[in-house]
Amino acid sequence: MTDWQALYADRMGGVVASDIRERMKLLDASQIIHLGGGLPDPDIFPYEPLAAASQAIWSDRARARTALQYAPSEGHAPLRQWIADYMTSHGAPCAIDNILITNGSQQGLDFAAKLLLSPGDLAMVEIPSFIGALRAFDAYQPRYIGLPERSEDWRASELGGAKFCYVGPDFRNPTGTTMTLAEREALLDLAAETGMALLEDGCYEQLRYDGEDIPSLLALAIGRHGDIEKVPVLHTGTFSKTIAPSLRIGWIAGPAEAIRKLVLIKQASDLATSALNQMLLLDVVKTGLDASIQTACTVYRARRDAMLRTLEEAMPDTVRWTRPEGGLYIWGELPEGVDGTRFAERALLEHSVSIISGAAFYPARAANVDVRRNTFRLSFSMIGEEPARTGVLRLGALAHEMVSASA
Amino acid sequence: MTDWQALYADRMGGVVASDIRERMKLLDASQIIHLGGGLPDPDIFPYEPLAAASQAIWSDRARARTALQYAPSEGHAPLRQWIADYMTSHGAPCAIDNILITNGSQQGLDFAAKLLLSPGDLAMVEIPSFIGALRAFDAYQPRYIGLPERSEDWRASELGGAKFCYVGPDFRNPTGTTMTLAEREALLDLAAETGMALLEDGCYEQLRYDGEDIPSLLALAIGRHGDIEKVPVLHTGTFSKTIAPSLRIGWIAGPAEAIRKLVLIKQASDLATSALNQMLLLDVVKTGLDASIQTACTVYRARRDAMLRTLEEAMPDTVRWTRPEGGLYIWGELPEGVDGTRFAERALLEHSVSIISGAAFYPARAANVDVRRNTFRLSFSMIGEEPARTGVLRLGALAHEMVSASA
Repeated sequence: MTDWQALYADRMGGVVASDIRERMKLLDASQIIHLGGGLPDPDIFPYEPLAAASQAIWSDRARARTALQYAPSEGHAPLRQWIADYMTSHGAPCAIDNILITNGSQQGLDFAAKLLLSPGDLAMVEIPSFIGALRAFDAYQPRYIGLPERSEDWRASELGGAKFCYVGPDFRNPTGTTMTLAEREALLDLAAETGMALLEDGCYEQLRYDGEDIPSLLALAIGRHGDIEKVPVLHTGTFSKTIAPSLRIGWIAGPAEAIRKLVLIKQASDLATSALNQMLLLDVVKTGLDASIQTACTVYRARRDAMLRTLEEAMPDTVRWTRPEGGLYIWGELPEGVDGTRFAERALLEHSVSIISGAAFYPARAANVDVRRNTFRLSFSMIGEEPARTGVLRLGALAHEMVSASA
Repeated sequence: MTDWQALYADRMGGVVASDIRERMKLLDASQIIHLGGGLPDPDIFPYEPLAAASQAIWSDRARARTALQYAPSEGHAPLRQWIADYMTSHGAPCAIDNILITNGSQQGLDFAAKLLLSPGDLAMVEIPSFIGALRAFDAYQPRYIGLPERSEDWRASELGGAKFCYVGPDFRNPTGTTMTLAEREALLDLAAETGMALLEDGCYEQLRYDGEDIPSLLALAIGRHGDIEKVPVLHTGTFSKTIAPSLRIGWIAGPAEAIRKLVLIKQASDLATSALNQMLLLDVVKTGLDASIQTACTVYRARRDAMLRTLEEAMPDTVRWTRPEGGLYIWGELPEGVDGTRFAERALLEHSVSIISGAAFYPARAANVDVRRNTFRLSFSMIGEEPARTGVLRLGALAHEMVSASA
């Protein structure tokens, strides 16, 4: 008898289902103020351009045939070329053979792990890390090692043996913090010394609200090696945050040799990404990506600013939080001894405010990692300033109560 | 230094890339007659219904918002419900919790293997087997065992220890043959005796051109156990052959406990399937699936009949082939000692006819499997009767030449 219940029990980091995705099921519960999951705001999706692109495909039978037939596993060639040109114009010179189209960047993370990991291999991750990346890696049963927080502690002698290090240099999920140029250079040094690959999650890099762009690890590595073919970096990108998530279009950029292997993985995993969606996306980004990014940045910058102001107003002095230059997240830290998971549970159950406990963002069984249990993540992407303000005020009152009780 | 070239070299069954998919890159080479890959004919895609469904989504902002935002990992609930009802009305009573939406049935095969296999586990497959399934399984590094061709040889004492057996009961790829009811019952017996799961690939089951429907393994297992929750079967389905492949919509049906695990795998692999494509698909199948199936069956039945007639006319007496009751494929067998791979190579290079060597459909390193090297696969799905006739006549001439030379 097949024991379905026993299967896979050793994977998924002991988490039954990602907090974030489970909470998405609550979206219909109209009373809840959602500061948890980092869904993009549907108000900024480019409906008219997508409708026009769609109409253009259906009214041209030759294009419609291409849109409905299997696409090449590598992706729709004109879109791959467009992304290669885009990467090139943003400091990372690429050709079409350096690009694989994926179903969002989540699939890029999964494929990179499928390429790089066998059970028991060591995977290095930033601490804390994007839950979705941890779940993608968990499936291949690695052991984890944390990338120490301070680059002064990045010593090859203590950090050797990992197959790769996963990082999100820009406004990363969950902390909202950004790696400095010096840190990026130090990480490239560490990769060179230890022989590990770098898996760079670029999913928020277009969403910068202030400050100066910092070159990606991929761009810096190309600068060092003179050529993308020699770099140790795989870079994932996505249109989920700038155009719309449900087109499910992302990409991996890297050396052509690695991309060829990843194409085999794509082929074996789901054959190809939807040609229809790739064509729709290409039509829209060709003329509209800059405008979409500008709209997103305008909307999210204002929401970030408003949330930071409300935090200042509402939170006890002993609570701290990050001030991200972009992305969708603010990371909060309660005083030592105040539990973030309890804070999140009470916020939801007593105050109808959904946030995510910081503990969810730590890998299971990482020898060198201490879980900071007094942390939580806020997202400012999905709801307007007024309900967000109400939510943060409620969180502030709860934090005052819990901090007082713990004193 | 990351050695990209060394990575994954032990996977993918020693095949650099699937013959079929590589050949798809040749689609623009207008001189080649394609009897290789089993692409559906774009002439039968429901363009007008999809255009109308698309227009209906873009003209209703509430629906458009849903179409562009992340879908639940399980799939768009109304589509899951529709598929559950469809399965129920076709002899396999299911509820919504028994259905996971996947990116085509290829992703269903990948996920089933990800759920069931760890490196070194034993996977049983029909011989020969669908290449895409073998490549999906290869990624999880199983050892293979072949399901013997004759059910008289299905003895639990010799076939124990496999995690699952993969079969395509209806008009399977590559042979076009169909399992009898008695064979299906015997396979369920074998599964019960050995404790293995059954992975049933249902991707061609709607494409029956003659003969009587035979209940699926899933339906028979539900009949035995009285309830889908207790069956050892995972069943994959797809709309790629009946509506259009590039919507990338398929499904897995099985016990809710297994589906819950597969949802976690979906979440970690690519979060969710495109909501837009699920909504488009649902709009079309709700009223149009039967008509689409009828169109496909009418077109493909005529092509199968024509190809069987031409084979009769063109082939030497010593060449044999299957007479499928449905699906897209005919499996040919040259006389012993005439190599199918050489036949396929010469067909392409000397006669501009693309077919697939039978040897491609055998798993690597399966102890109990002899590769039949004198075989080849023809597809009748993608091109019209006239060019197909030209192709088969050329194959016949080549077969006469090679059979004579070997005599």
